Amino acid sequence: MIETTFDSFLGGKVQVHQPRDGYRAGTDPVLMAAACPAAAGESVLELGCGVGVASLCLLARVPQAQVTGLELQPDYAALARSNAQGLPFEVIVGDVAAPPAELSALNFDHVICNPPYFAPKAGTASTNASRETALREDVSLAKWIDVATRRLRPRGTLTMILRADRLDSYFQAIDARMGSHIVLPLTSRAQKPAQRVIFCSRKGGRAGLQMCPPMVLHEGPQHFEDGDDFTKIASDVLRGGAAIHLK
Amino acid sequence: MIETTFDSFLGGKVQVHQPRDGYRAGTDPVLMAAACPAAAGESVLELGCGVGVASLCLLARVPQAQVTGLELQPDYAALARSNAQGLPFEVIVGDVAAPPAELSALNFDHVICNPPYFAPKAGTASTNASRETALREDVSLAKWIDVATRRLRPRGTLTMILRADRLDSYFQAIDARMGSHIVLPLTSRAQKPAQRVIFCSRKGGRAGLQMCPPMVLHEGPQHFEDGDDFTKIASDVLRGGAAIHLK
Repeated sequence: MIETTFDSFLGGKVQVHQPRDGYRAGTDPVLMAAACPAAAGESVLELGCGVGVASLCLLARVPQAQVTGLELQPDYAALARSNAQGLPFEVIVGDVAAPPAELSALNFDHVICNPPYFAPKAGTASTNASRETALREDVSLAKWIDVATRRLRPRGTLTMILRADRLDSYFQAIDARMGSHIVLPLTSRAQKPAQRVIFCSRKGGRAGLQMCPPMVLHEGPQHFEDGDDFTKIASDVLRGGAAIHLK
Repeated sequence: MIETTFDSFLGGKVQVHQPRDGYRAGTDPVLMAAACPAAAGESVLELGCGVGVASLCLLARVPQAQVTGLELQPDYAALARSNAQGLPFEVIVGDVAAPPAELSALNFDHVICNPPYFAPKAGTASTNASRETALREDVSLAKWIDVATRRLRPRGTLTMILRADRLDSYFQAIDARMGSHIVLPLTSRAQKPAQRVIFCSRKGGRAGLQMCPPMVLHEGPQHFEDGDDFTKIASDVLRGGAAIHLK
């Protein structure tokens, strides 16, 4: 039995139980879900769904979507199922390195993926094994992207959020099956280097790569107060559940 | 004999003869030269130097640098030599696809390169053969980067300017000999997609990739008047000859 906390996202529209000490969802899955261009009636696969925060944020915005999550760790998958509470969110336990036949039989209109944070052997290992599994890239970024690409229908989209310093890794990992790349840098403060990048690529896409202006998350040059200093656009997305329109 | 015009860059600090009808230098080589971190006494190679605008802008800012240019088209190379007017700028005629032995015997602290603009077979062919050669990528981006990488000393830097939609191509073309990538998007107007990207990568670099905030070239949402509407930072670079500090 793992100890959990009960946490709110999207201003309370999404509430999840997540492990107190393991990997804990922050703003990354929320921002990624906001950037997935899913529409009502479309199917979405989340690779590495954890306790389901991104998938549930997506369903809060697009209630008529059909979401499937793949999660390696059974404890997280069980929490995701419990968090789903009757929503159209099915969770499959399995490893992206060897996708289960149940998943390989399916195709999707969209894939979302917030893959492990650190490259293999980079960063300091977590003492929490589950957190370590969620953060450490034992499976290469190329493998995550390959599985996503295979599961997409023609013209389907892949939306990922990565650390900004993995910009090169993304384009080294993705191949010519995917195109029409859109790159959205995310930065805490205006005029500062980006910390995160959201990528959206389309299967069979032929449009030129587009680099969007950065989305700035916080007002002002630094954090002066305890209170919320989100920019309006960040607040609209993180609290209001608005979409991020990549175009 | 080709017909030329006499044009000023950096507020008149650089003056060059360039073909009236061929490829004509705009702001790209000026911006690229401003971003090259060359210091006094260091050597710089420009691959595809044309009539020498980038190299001469670099020498205007760093007069103690030693610059070598490689140029395929003899007419352009001759103009570059004439434009150099006794400055430490040597021009070698040769093809980056088969670098001359004279070049391969040398190593450099820095390489700058504003390679052809269009991918092979993309865009509309120019009716001017020289302009077509300057714009059309008959030599792959990977080849330009490989030649640059080979000619760099350890810890040397490569600075390139590319269309923003070639962001993916850059990272697909560069290999693990180069690292510590810095990416600077350039945009005409604030809050608009980037049109160009300056890349600076270091041979043997191990630092994480950094994505800088965009450099905005023009004030306001659109061009209303005939006059100059450069932002201060753009004017400082394009007119004042200031460096672009990538960090």
